[in-house]
Amino acid sequence: MGTTQLESVPEPKYWHLKTVLSEALDSEFSVGEILPNERDLAARFGVARATLRQALEQLELEGRLQRRRGVGTTVAPPRVGVAVGTEQHVWPGTPGDDWQLADCTLAAPPAAVADVLETGRDEPVHIVRRSRMTHGQPLAAELLYIPRSSVPDLSAIDAPAPVARARAVLRELERLELEGQDRSVELGSARADDAKELDRLPGAPVLLVTTRFVAEGRTVALSLATYRADTCRLTFGDSGGVEIDHTPERRAS
Amino acid sequence: MGTTQLESVPEPKYWHLKTVLSEALDSEFSVGEILPNERDLAARFGVARATLRQALEQLELEGRLQRRRGVGTTVAPPRVGVAVGTEQHVWPGTPGDDWQLADCTLAAPPAAVADVLETGRDEPVHIVRRSRMTHGQPLAAELLYIPRSSVPDLSAIDAPAPVARARAVLRELERLELEGQDRSVELGSARADDAKELDRLPGAPVLLVTTRFVAEGRTVALSLATYRADTCRLTFGDSGGVEIDHTPERRAS
Repeated sequence: MGTTQLESVPEPKYWHLKTVLSEALDSEFSVGEILPNERDLAARFGVARATLRQALEQLELEGRLQRRRGVGTTVAPPRVGVAVGTEQHVWPGTPGDDWQLADCTLAAPPAAVADVLETGRDEPVHIVRRSRMTHGQPLAAELLYIPRSSVPDLSAIDAPAPVARARAVLRELERLELEGQDRSVELGSARADDAKELDRLPGAPVLLVTTRFVAEGRTVALSLATYRADTCRLTFGDSGGVEIDHTPERRAS
Repeated sequence: MGTTQLESVPEPKYWHLKTVLSEALDSEFSVGEILPNERDLAARFGVARATLRQALEQLELEGRLQRRRGVGTTVAPPRVGVAVGTEQHVWPGTPGDDWQLADCTLAAPPAAVADVLETGRDEPVHIVRRSRMTHGQPLAAELLYIPRSSVPDLSAIDAPAPVARARAVLRELERLELEGQDRSVELGSARADDAKELDRLPGAPVLLVTTRFVAEGRTVALSLATYRADTCRLTFGDSGGVEIDHTPERRAS
């Protein structure tokens, strides 16, 4: 491809560079391949490092590139469709759900969570930690907040194993008849702990999925799930969503 | 608050700075207020410009800050919950839908769209452009692709007004019995044209919502909607979703 002249372009330099880089990714690089370092790339395209970084950030947003701790910037595989909303309402932890239980603690939730659960600000609730994997890759990390009033018959959890404690809480929760659930999706940045679990750098863009579980006319559980925005395409509805390549270059006809 | 020492912090500098900045936003700034310029901020917190920029990008991802063309960086209002998925299936353009018709053209769609619609790569389809506003603020820009086979009885559109043309196509589409729809949500960056329409800078993070409309056992329409990620929280389910403050500082109890 050789060096590209970016001087005489009306749109922002990094934007045009992004398009050029994107074409280079298609033609010269394969999935998983590590990109040359920033100095070499900047020289090749005749741009400043800052401009290059902006373009790389764009491509990361679009899921074309992944920045991985200790590895560098690699060409990303196509995003994985991850079913989030389903028509049939199911409790977390019921068969077919591909979340792995990590542990369960009893602690006061963040104030915003307590307000939704209508528990007291300092009232401890069960906090079940789960993670969602595919092909050994972490997709999402979840904190599931369950007020003690939602699992009243839960006998004092004597199970020593964290996973067993978590399972006991979810088993109790399933006794309730799920009346409905609603979800919201928004953009966020990975907290340090989520980033570690998701094998991302702190502050990496993530998709935050909040799910409210309703039974007995009230919110009986609240899930805050952090999905990797680089690898995940969240799908809603039964058919598992649509396979569309969203990269701007290809969206423009 | 004065200058903050960031030297002796294990986590990345920008990450700690982001937390400090976030607290400053809560305590010292009001919604819509313009932040001091980067030089002054960097000096105040005793960090390099690059570190400051990283922290500002984090806060933008989290919806705390907005970068606006010609204005600068301002403190963002809380995100707006925008209903995307509904239990009842409705056609685009039916009463109660808050999209505004822009125009309608007949052109070949991007290849990826043609493949989903199972139209020929060069076969022109109706492309309805719509935008979604709230309180005069643009929330989303949409391209709705409708194969001619989905609106066979559409008489030659002689309506001169672009909006009238768009309405005519949607009216024909509504004749079909909608059997289902599925959606996917993923992170993207705003194309130059979307960015302009959404009053964002090119490449700003956006939420890309793809909706496939199914009737007569096939895909009869495909919507590619670009939502502002800074102002929108997409909600699914009837209750309009959950009000949760997701900013990491507040999620950590």
